[in-house]
Amino acid sequence: MYTIIFRQNGYEIKTQAPGGQTLLQAAREAGVDIDAPCSGSGLCGKCRVKLLEGELDGGCGRQLSEEEIRSGIRLACESHIVSDAVIEIPETAGSFRYGIVTADFSTRRDLSVFDTVSEELKQEGIEKLRNHFSILILSLDEPTLEDTMPDLERVRQKILEETGCGHIRFSSVFVRKAASVLREHGFHAALPVEKREDGSLFVYDILPPDSKVIPAAAVDIGTTTVAAVLTDLCTGNILARASAGNAQIRYGADVINRIIAASRPGGRELLRKAVEEDTIRPMIRQMCSDSGIDPAGIYRLCVASNTTMNHLFTGCFADPIRMEPYVPTFFKTDAFSGHDLALGIHPDAPVLFAPNVGSYVGGDITAGVLVSRMWSKPEFSIFVDLGTNGEIVFGNEDFMMCCACSAGPAFEGGDIHCGMRATNGAISGIRIDPETMEPEYTVIGDSAPLGLCGSGIIDTVCELFRCGIISPKGAIIREGRRILRDQSGIGRFVIVEGTAHQREIFIDEVDIANFVRAKGAIFSAIITMLKCVDMDVSMIEHIYIAGGIGSGLNIKNAVTIGMLPRLHEDQYTYLGNTSLTGAVCMLLSDDAVNKVDEISSGLTYLELSTQPGYMDEFVAACFLPHTDASLFAEA
Amino acid sequence: MYTIIFRQNGYEIKTQAPGGQTLLQAAREAGVDIDAPCSGSGLCGKCRVKLLEGELDGGCGRQLSEEEIRSGIRLACESHIVSDAVIEIPETAGSFRYGIVTADFSTRRDLSVFDTVSEELKQEGIEKLRNHFSILILSLDEPTLEDTMPDLERVRQKILEETGCGHIRFSSVFVRKAASVLREHGFHAALPVEKREDGSLFVYDILPPDSKVIPAAAVDIGTTTVAAVLTDLCTGNILARASAGNAQIRYGADVINRIIAASRPGGRELLRKAVEEDTIRPMIRQMCSDSGIDPAGIYRLCVASNTTMNHLFTGCFADPIRMEPYVPTFFKTDAFSGHDLALGIHPDAPVLFAPNVGSYVGGDITAGVLVSRMWSKPEFSIFVDLGTNGEIVFGNEDFMMCCACSAGPAFEGGDIHCGMRATNGAISGIRIDPETMEPEYTVIGDSAPLGLCGSGIIDTVCELFRCGIISPKGAIIREGRRILRDQSGIGRFVIVEGTAHQREIFIDEVDIANFVRAKGAIFSAIITMLKCVDMDVSMIEHIYIAGGIGSGLNIKNAVTIGMLPRLHEDQYTYLGNTSLTGAVCMLLSDDAVNKVDEISSGLTYLELSTQPGYMDEFVAACFLPHTDASLFAEA
Repeated sequence: MYTIIFRQNGYEIKTQAPGGQTLLQAAREAGVDIDAPCSGSGLCGKCRVKLLEGELDGGCGRQLSEEEIRSGIRLACESHIVSDAVIEIPETAGSFRYGIVTADFSTRRDLSVFDTVSEELKQEGIEKLRNHFSILILSLDEPTLEDTMPDLERVRQKILEETGCGHIRFSSVFVRKAASVLREHGFHAALPVEKREDGSLFVYDILPPDSKVIPAAAVDIGTTTVAAVLTDLCTGNILARASAGNAQIRYGADVINRIIAASRPGGRELLRKAVEEDTIRPMIRQMCSDSGIDPAGIYRLCVASNTTMNHLFTGCFADPIRMEPYVPTFFKTDAFSGHDLALGIHPDAPVLFAPNVGSYVGGDITAGVLVSRMWSKPEFSIFVDLGTNGEIVFGNEDFMMCCACSAGPAFEGGDIHCGMRATNGAISGIRIDPETMEPEYTVIGDSAPLGLCGSGIIDTVCELFRCGIISPKGAIIREGRRILRDQSGIGRFVIVEGTAHQREIFIDEVDIANFVRAKGAIFSAIITMLKCVDMDVSMIEHIYIAGGIGSGLNIKNAVTIGMLPRLHEDQYTYLGNTSLTGAVCMLLSDDAVNKVDEISSGLTYLELSTQPGYMDEFVAACFLPHTDASLFAEA
Repeated sequence: MYTIIFRQNGYEIKTQAPGGQTLLQAAREAGVDIDAPCSGSGLCGKCRVKLLEGELDGGCGRQLSEEEIRSGIRLACESHIVSDAVIEIPETAGSFRYGIVTADFSTRRDLSVFDTVSEELKQEGIEKLRNHFSILILSLDEPTLEDTMPDLERVRQKILEETGCGHIRFSSVFVRKAASVLREHGFHAALPVEKREDGSLFVYDILPPDSKVIPAAAVDIGTTTVAAVLTDLCTGNILARASAGNAQIRYGADVINRIIAASRPGGRELLRKAVEEDTIRPMIRQMCSDSGIDPAGIYRLCVASNTTMNHLFTGCFADPIRMEPYVPTFFKTDAFSGHDLALGIHPDAPVLFAPNVGSYVGGDITAGVLVSRMWSKPEFSIFVDLGTNGEIVFGNEDFMMCCACSAGPAFEGGDIHCGMRATNGAISGIRIDPETMEPEYTVIGDSAPLGLCGSGIIDTVCELFRCGIISPKGAIIREGRRILRDQSGIGRFVIVEGTAHQREIFIDEVDIANFVRAKGAIFSAIITMLKCVDMDVSMIEHIYIAGGIGSGLNIKNAVTIGMLPRLHEDQYTYLGNTSLTGAVCMLLSDDAVNKVDEISSGLTYLELSTQPGYMDEFVAACFLPHTDASLFAEA
């Protein structure tokens, strides 16, 4: 066994690993996240790490320059351990570190969204705070030698007296705490209770008599990013928010690779642990510590996530999702409670899932559609959720259909050499001078530029195209000091020049091709879906854009490159992370839960791959902007 | 830190302990059981261990002979760690070893009891197998591209079709396993289900289609001994049995010392862990491995135990039980399920408690009274449970009352120098030749004699009294080679002479005094209770004796020494461990559950300490046989 030390940003994790093991494997076992979008197959070249001390065997694949290799850069998936070693993990390779919860830039913008959405939904008859939780304040008679009724019986009789409810059930948490809390507070106490469907009153807990909050959490589990909100079931106030990278990234960038990883022996447990214990649990801990709440006092959880994510999160066998006939275990389930999950929340807290519609259209979409309100309008709208999978919903108050396309991780910085997620250091917007080709860019946070996030990539491709630097096929067709080519002749545009202290940030022809396929997938999916019902873009009144990627999204640029249809800018609405917003609505309001159920049962799923003409549409959309450029010409 | 190795019977546990810590404390922290009936206060001298290597500071208290000290014997509670050491724990000091499940001699005799009791209860209208669990065998259509219904929905529809029940709830265990089990068995499966009170069908699990058993466990948690049975809810067959010492013995021999230990910081968790994880979990594991059952496939648990034990087992705050006005948290509760307990059973398995009647009369007694059937008879009976606490129930079909007295641990070998529990090596019966004073004894198991268990102590005291070796006050009044005296003049009767390989086994005047107080407590409680309702012994038709101690109990001897009232031998029935038998009945039969509820709500609790005349009765009973010997004269 050798001692391997992983370092990042001042954090250090020490582990023991056997000789011959790959560095990626050792990192996974130590709970250290290294991005491995290709799941460690040596293809993507994203798992770059830097060897600071010791030796490694291999890891100098073709994705690395000679200079990189000289400076100690290695691919973790191809490096084998042969000695003690100290390894540095660059920000870009593992930007979502083990147990570290990062501030979230997409949901930060959503702050006001919760109130706006609540107001809007109220117009549709959905009350923001219609739930069955409440706090009961009790003052009991103290026991005496003449009145030795057990504590539980004493509380039961008092509840009956105060509420008229005789069917009372106690949580084990209540039973364990009752004697001490009652005696510490002179037999005065506050009880968080839920009126359940069978008419019974469920008593979750016993708290000091001045307690007024019933904390609950909503979680959007994205394939790449996980976002969460802590709220209060009594007032609907937002108590805290957090987001973090999904630590399952260790096991692959997309749902298919994750399912495959989960199908290996012990894999299901590893994938569950990664998202539950290494991602969501620290987020909950962080939110609770920010707001002075005990995690065990979270009494309800709502999860909105794609079908694969909610299966992997609950530890379900996900293989049938990727195998014909693509059947998941559940669309919706109320089988899970806090005690089934290693999140540290109340053991009896019900876990509510936004319902799935199919194996590739999940609860993130049904929760998102709730927020869009397209289900209440006579005119036709489109809802696009830009994640690692792109999901599209089309319809109106009478009818809705949905489909999913595999956009790949490009929108979130995957499959792009200098791609990264929308965190500190990401270039989120760019302008290029058509004459000098000199770029101007904006960077998220107070940081030197580290890479390009999704919106930065869209802008870059658009600007390169607008300035005539790249052709409709994505080939670089101008020369200049910003244009470099490698030995095989692959051209790249340098956005930030490399120095001793600054990594070179560029986009190359391979990146552009990857990105163009992603945007082509989205556009062709929209067109195919419309064709399927004999409609075209002109009949669409509104397009709603959702997803973490969207926060810096320049709609005009996205239209220019042929990613989204040419509608008037006013017809676009950016809704932010609708999955999270929808989950918060469901958490607080049973009306919202019922509406999402109604939406999901009314959604018709369209399997794109079996649609005639889809492949042709896709190929046509893999140009800038499209083989039919007139589709995107400004009016 | 020093390295301490504890050895017993070939098992070895190694631990690190700081200098100055007592050996008892180090053992507790390492999960090693050393009997400490006085909870480590240096009084009882039971925590004898043998120092094999290294050194200890202190531990040579007055309870040890010089020869014992020379041979390395020390008191663990008074020995302080000053070096690395190897410690042997004698069978007698820690006869219930960490994680070791011993065969149970009292329940072994109960084997036929389950059937007999079931037959008898049937005559009272209590059906042995009236419960709401069953196994549903399903054959489903396999999904196709045309029929992609999720697995859960598929199962739900099939259940509705087969049973007509539309209100179906799935356990998280079912949801997690459904996809793989269905596919491994061609969409055929067996589902253990429970029809619940609200009309819903709860699906616990999904098993291969040939599964036929619904395992369930009954546990009797005694202060000293824990006994358990694994049974099948479908057939009522007994699948396995086990018993073990309650590992809480580390924290004191009686309920008061245990409650005090639990009230210290972190104590509640330690006491819970001791009985749950160190005692019952290994028993369940053992029973399951004996019968080829997965512990996670135990779908129901029934617990019968005294009020303190069921509070400490569930992690409840027990302090109010010992403090005026003596109020427990609960008499009965349905708040606990498998997931609340670290037993490895099914997380949704309901935990059923035999109801308590007061702080000192618990579910062990209500379950026991069920088995006695005294509640169905017009004549008056007495039920005596001889445990660390003695509980007495008196009454008939119209009326029942109960009381508890603190007999102390003497019946189980505590407070007696050479006392031990009824396991291998215990002398369980004895005859003494009145002329020669030479004893003849029987030993449990195939072992050299190690000590005296409860029934052996009763026999010894009776024989010593019968042979005129001791006076009515318990003083040794004959001389001979079997009679020895220590420096302070305390006489002892040597039952087994000490040799190089055999520990001396004796009973001394202090032991006899301790035992006489125990038997006096039982007898005076019976008399006081009868007086309280203006009755006397002659009005009693039947006395039922229950408890682990009873298996080798010689009733005639117990009457001779004034422990039990003088009735005809036919009027006594030894029922064995009625607490466990009653728990099994409740586990299998809802009729039994209802009957126990009825019994408990009809039981009037009599607080002995406030009864006028009780102390006089007790003092009078602290003679052999009694100050009024005529009470025990043979007819």
